[in-house]
Amino acid sequence: MNASARLAAQLGFLIESEKLKEVLRRSSPVGVSRRENSAEHSWTLALMAMTLAEHANAAMDLGRVFRMLLLHDLVEIDAGDTFCYDAAGNATKAERECRAAERIFGLLPEDQAGEFRELWEEFEEGASAEAAFANALDRLMPLIQNFNNGGRSWREHGVTGGQVLERNRKIGEGSAGLWEYAEALIGEAKAQGFFGDKL
Amino acid sequence: MNASARLAAQLGFLIESEKLKEVLRRSSPVGVSRRENSAEHSWTLALMAMTLAEHANAAMDLGRVFRMLLLHDLVEIDAGDTFCYDAAGNATKAERECRAAERIFGLLPEDQAGEFRELWEEFEEGASAEAAFANALDRLMPLIQNFNNGGRSWREHGVTGGQVLERNRKIGEGSAGLWEYAEALIGEAKAQGFFGDKL
Repeated sequence: MNASARLAAQLGFLIESEKLKEVLRRSSPVGVSRRENSAEHSWTLALMAMTLAEHANAAMDLGRVFRMLLLHDLVEIDAGDTFCYDAAGNATKAERECRAAERIFGLLPEDQAGEFRELWEEFEEGASAEAAFANALDRLMPLIQNFNNGGRSWREHGVTGGQVLERNRKIGEGSAGLWEYAEALIGEAKAQGFFGDKL
Repeated sequence: MNASARLAAQLGFLIESEKLKEVLRRSSPVGVSRRENSAEHSWTLALMAMTLAEHANAAMDLGRVFRMLLLHDLVEIDAGDTFCYDAAGNATKAERECRAAERIFGLLPEDQAGEFRELWEEFEEGASAEAAFANALDRLMPLIQNFNNGGRSWREHGVTGGQVLERNRKIGEGSAGLWEYAEALIGEAKAQGFFGDKL
């Protein structure tokens, strides 16, 4: 692959990535009534990583956290955003996302296709220090958004306080400090009747 | 400032940053009719940095490029997005953005307020290798978007081919290779009658 074919492949990938701006999530940005898209969500997570890095449980390569967060949702272009409390959707999610990763990262030159795919798999696995922190942020932000929007998305979808507590417990694997904060926020949301089960 | 006050300040900054999702730019994402917001635009630039880093003129700290791009537009929360071909708006832009930087980065703990402010100033100045490359991407993407959307935003605002050529020449300071590509794209846009002056 010569230099100009390489650049053309990279730009083809970037133009394809524009489609992530049309994938809608269940959450809304704080203070905004429309649902947010997965591109602006990815920006938020990267900005969080740079702001909150000091709270990570372990020493990390922050550049790797950025790269993981920037690409972690690209598979949704083909596979759609699967609501985290949708059991049926989550049963088929892995297969749909693998096919999507194959196609989308496959638009890149071969070396980068492999590198991006590995970063995505590392994020999905969540085992490295970088991936654990990145996953913690991916869970924490919707919590903050839903709390600050009066629990709208939880109530609309009948999500219970117990479900939110279970799903978000993994935040502690990336950051004990952020999990302590999140747990208090969930307790406060419950006290205010923000959950679908109105506990 | 104790640990919990520090985290509260950081989260206050992140919640404030949600407002960038309501700042609209003149360009639209490729293939999309709505205008894009500055948050999703910032995500695109960071993804570009990770994909196109090899084309930079000089060796760079990619993590610094990410951090600059993630925060470079936050001042628009107060100052608004100034269209790059609006001479009157650009005359007052610097002062408006300085006041915005003071307030928005000032929400962070003092050490981070200083660090984020410096990154923003470095981007604005455009002198370091990292800032020159970040600025090149900030110019290149709207060009790619407008070209792939048939020049809609250029025609709507009467932007001429000469203006686009002048504004984008700075791409070469960050990446000779990307400027070579951009120049050819501008030539092709002119040939297809995509500019406001229909040259």
